[in-house]
Amino acid sequence: MQGRRAEGAGQGTMKLHWSPRSPFVRKVMVAAHELGLADRIATVRTVVAMQKPARDLLPDNPLGKIPTLVLEDGTILYDSLVIIEYLDSLAGGGRLVPPAGPARFTELRRHALTNGFLDLLILWRNERDKAQPLPALLDAFALKTDAVLQALEDEIGAIAEGPAGLAQITTAIVGAYMDFRFPDLGWRRRCPRLSAWQQGFAERPSMRATEIVDA
Amino acid sequence: MQGRRAEGAGQGTMKLHWSPRSPFVRKVMVAAHELGLADRIATVRTVVAMQKPARDLLPDNPLGKIPTLVLEDGTILYDSLVIIEYLDSLAGGGRLVPPAGPARFTELRRHALTNGFLDLLILWRNERDKAQPLPALLDAFALKTDAVLQALEDEIGAIAEGPAGLAQITTAIVGAYMDFRFPDLGWRRRCPRLSAWQQGFAERPSMRATEIVDA
Repeated sequence: MQGRRAEGAGQGTMKLHWSPRSPFVRKVMVAAHELGLADRIATVRTVVAMQKPARDLLPDNPLGKIPTLVLEDGTILYDSLVIIEYLDSLAGGGRLVPPAGPARFTELRRHALTNGFLDLLILWRNERDKAQPLPALLDAFALKTDAVLQALEDEIGAIAEGPAGLAQITTAIVGAYMDFRFPDLGWRRRCPRLSAWQQGFAERPSMRATEIVDA
Repeated sequence: MQGRRAEGAGQGTMKLHWSPRSPFVRKVMVAAHELGLADRIATVRTVVAMQKPARDLLPDNPLGKIPTLVLEDGTILYDSLVIIEYLDSLAGGGRLVPPAGPARFTELRRHALTNGFLDLLILWRNERDKAQPLPALLDAFALKTDAVLQALEDEIGAIAEGPAGLAQITTAIVGAYMDFRFPDLGWRRRCPRLSAWQQGFAERPSMRATEIVDA
């Protein structure tokens, strides 16, 4: 993924605290590409780690998390869900998240599952990389991961019938994240339907434009 | 907070995976009280800890997190934000979260700040309770907490002018959570305006009905 600059993109340029490997940032960039808004986002590389807060980020987001979006008028938005709903509204609304009714809550619940899974995987990675990881914690992460993978494999048919919106984007990104950080999980072997669907979604221009690279 | 049962409450009873001390569960219950929907929620005590996943919960929520809401038709909703927006829609919509426009995104960003702060505090508590906590991680939690408390103290005047909605509820709950789990932080001394506002909000019936007890 290029550190895309939009200087000169004209009216409405937004600044995004960005990193090439954060799956939460990638959600926002895929959404922006899907909505045709990527040219309006100027990315600023911001390196964040749980043990190394980005001090420059704290004035914009005291939690020290990315993505954080700064609008032209100085308004600040986070987290990724809030930013994506905002971008969706800029594009007319209801394109990535259904505006109301059961479809909306199903989309948001599926997002909560895959986004919560990303949170889990990031905590798992932090724990396993410690000199003395806590076995009970590693076991808990593995148990929940088994449950999430089974749930996604069971539900991917229904997810695939929905729009190319928030839930599909996050599902595809968590697959790519597992490839990148958890190759030993064997998720593609364990979840063949999820894997096949993810490979198809990963061919979308929005996904190709935001591929994780060791930049 | 009582383990409130709503058997016999009639049409539309929902089941909530609940615990008396989870601030995320409390958000949902405060919201339900504010909306007049608490009688429609039957709570089921579900004990969850990072190192001890609740196996009975995994079929409803593979992430093993509470709150998780099960509707009468079997539809499952999580996380707390999704549940609150759903309850708000049941009550007509737009009461706890503005439906659109800048007010909505400000409300959601403020919620992301205070809810992300709850996430941080819970991770901090998990780390500090370990036999060998990681100093760099403890330092990072403390640094971010300083930034969040300063931001909340600066913004509480504006938050207080808003509705008694999602942002105010979460702000008041994080204050109560700090009293309960982080008395040494001295947040009331450090944030006098936030503290005074929180004491007022804590007198609302919704907050009184959901006080944390060592039940």
